[in-house]
Amino acid sequence: MKEIYLDQGATSYPKAPGVSMAIADYIENIGVSMNRGSYGKAMDVGSMAISLRERACKLFSFQDPSHVIITPGATIALNMLIMPLFQEGGHVITSPLEHNAVRRPLEILLQREENPISLSSFLYDLGLDGDFSPLEKLIRPDTKALIMLHASNVSGEVFPVEAIGKICKEKGIDFILDASQSGGHIPIDFEKMNLSALILPGHKGLLGPQGIGLTLLREDFAKKLSPYLYGGTGSVSESLRMPNFMPDKFEPGTPNIPGIYGLEKALQFIEEIGVETIQAHTSKLHQRFLEGLYEIQGKKKLRIPGKEGRENSGVVSIDFCDTDNALVCSRLASQYGIMTRQGLHCAPMAHQCFGTKESGTVRFSFGFFNRMEEIDQTLLAIREILS
Amino acid sequence: MKEIYLDQGATSYPKAPGVSMAIADYIENIGVSMNRGSYGKAMDVGSMAISLRERACKLFSFQDPSHVIITPGATIALNMLIMPLFQEGGHVITSPLEHNAVRRPLEILLQREENPISLSSFLYDLGLDGDFSPLEKLIRPDTKALIMLHASNVSGEVFPVEAIGKICKEKGIDFILDASQSGGHIPIDFEKMNLSALILPGHKGLLGPQGIGLTLLREDFAKKLSPYLYGGTGSVSESLRMPNFMPDKFEPGTPNIPGIYGLEKALQFIEEIGVETIQAHTSKLHQRFLEGLYEIQGKKKLRIPGKEGRENSGVVSIDFCDTDNALVCSRLASQYGIMTRQGLHCAPMAHQCFGTKESGTVRFSFGFFNRMEEIDQTLLAIREILS
Repeated sequence: MKEIYLDQGATSYPKAPGVSMAIADYIENIGVSMNRGSYGKAMDVGSMAISLRERACKLFSFQDPSHVIITPGATIALNMLIMPLFQEGGHVITSPLEHNAVRRPLEILLQREENPISLSSFLYDLGLDGDFSPLEKLIRPDTKALIMLHASNVSGEVFPVEAIGKICKEKGIDFILDASQSGGHIPIDFEKMNLSALILPGHKGLLGPQGIGLTLLREDFAKKLSPYLYGGTGSVSESLRMPNFMPDKFEPGTPNIPGIYGLEKALQFIEEIGVETIQAHTSKLHQRFLEGLYEIQGKKKLRIPGKEGRENSGVVSIDFCDTDNALVCSRLASQYGIMTRQGLHCAPMAHQCFGTKESGTVRFSFGFFNRMEEIDQTLLAIREILS
Repeated sequence: MKEIYLDQGATSYPKAPGVSMAIADYIENIGVSMNRGSYGKAMDVGSMAISLRERACKLFSFQDPSHVIITPGATIALNMLIMPLFQEGGHVITSPLEHNAVRRPLEILLQREENPISLSSFLYDLGLDGDFSPLEKLIRPDTKALIMLHASNVSGEVFPVEAIGKICKEKGIDFILDASQSGGHIPIDFEKMNLSALILPGHKGLLGPQGIGLTLLREDFAKKLSPYLYGGTGSVSESLRMPNFMPDKFEPGTPNIPGIYGLEKALQFIEEIGVETIQAHTSKLHQRFLEGLYEIQGKKKLRIPGKEGRENSGVVSIDFCDTDNALVCSRLASQYGIMTRQGLHCAPMAHQCFGTKESGTVRFSFGFFNRMEEIDQTLLAIREILS
């Protein structure tokens, strides 16, 4: 049975060509650590890390490679930003669709006894009528930041980030964007979006391996942020404090060096293809899938979260209403080799917003390497399962 | 020029046979995420993670695979333990030789305004005369834990951990062991050493890739520890709190899955060879190197930190006294292709203790794949450089 992988929202597969080779070649033929030796090979590793940072700058219209932090992934990166930022409390604004990677750190800050934060979510339909004033009204004197996902991992819908960033800038609050479901899927412009921080996992739309991510920090934001993780940096080793300079301030310990080689290769591929091309392709898959779905089943018998009029990053979640979602997901896998994911997708707030918290949904998420035939075969399988 | 890699203390090279292949095979042919889908391949990944945890149990005489946490590395793991443990302050005891991975997190707790901790280091010669009572005397009613490295990354000397663990047990304080320079190099028995937590990087003596580590937690210690990192776990997704069960409580976000495949393969190799065999081999290299050194240069013209009478994990640091250390290190690399590391090795406390904080040292660190000829060639090179 030929497999069809439609769980790209969890992790992308296949990866960009050459990723596994770059990693294996590093491990077999280079192998040494970074910033921790002065022999030639250690310098080679350092150069590769610089190249990775520079590629990220190019891809996300960012100026300063030294402010591109190499992290173990988006979750730890979000902790690194959220925890120090709200050390003394304050008010935070989020979207109503947050993933647990944002919502769980915030929850602990909400519930703590000393300096608890307060939280507001903007309304789900924000900006659909062109009016962003409801967001402005949420901003208080103690509002420190707006932290939100760019695209929902459940519905795939993309929030109008440029307009939101403009308000953050005008009101002087920091804007932290979790691009876990958008980086590599749709264009992101750090400057135009007025971001303070952009958080990216390496293993989703960026088509690199798991265990590495990138976080881009605007200079003034990096300055005001204390480290959350401490350790050796191979720099100012005589000091018991973390270095104050970038990127060392936020990079303690030996990084995921095979991941650096793999992700660098992946970004090279994305540069060559272009995010616009990737987006055009997944949009087509997404469009065809939705049309086919509605042919099979009337709109009334399917609940598909997401506001019309918003861009989509290539994700469709379905509550099959009359049919058990878990059963659909499991039959897709066992009978047709089609890999999807059923449940709450670590985003209970989103399902609460969509009214699908009880049922969950089956999520179909597409990527650059999915082909139109796969969409057609999936539609055929759904037709058979529902009949 | 044939290269000789003697910077095994920074990261091991080469890795165990099959590590790069296991990683490349996962990326090319499996590729899916863990705990985030119910299709067959996702289950395969889950099984590999379980196998990794089980191998760690076997290697370190530990009972419960669910209490083997997969981390991004030793540095983040140490933060995950130290920060929550001392949230309300308290007293900590360390060795005098700590790496910045332990010392920098502790420093921030020492210097903070609210609930600052207090810290005592035991004396460098602890236990050399068989008397451990000086350690007992450091323990106070508010002492929460003893946190220390097993083997020094500068001198390679191994602290008598079993005797120290016995005291911790008797006095009812937690014992957290940083095995960054000992795991895979010398035998470690979690139970016999009375550990509360054992922290291991995957990429040093365990011969796996960078970007992954393992932390073993005794059940009662895991229970009292709050998470330091929050995010999605693919479990109890409806809750905004981290799960209370293990290992999910300490594993937010997508882990380094290629790293899981690589490290699992590496532990398999270590199991087959046996840590005792590895230790016997590096001990011989270490012995020969020391003897050769003293033949070249009298003991008076070399400062080699480390107490005689202690085991060594395969590391020799040298202050060449009359000759500039940086020059020795750089000539070894450029003229002879011998990779070592010069400086403070992220361990200023250790160099302060040894009296080498001004000069630093050149560190030669050995591993299972180094051969006797390499030691002889290195001695020859040192002879030429010093003459």
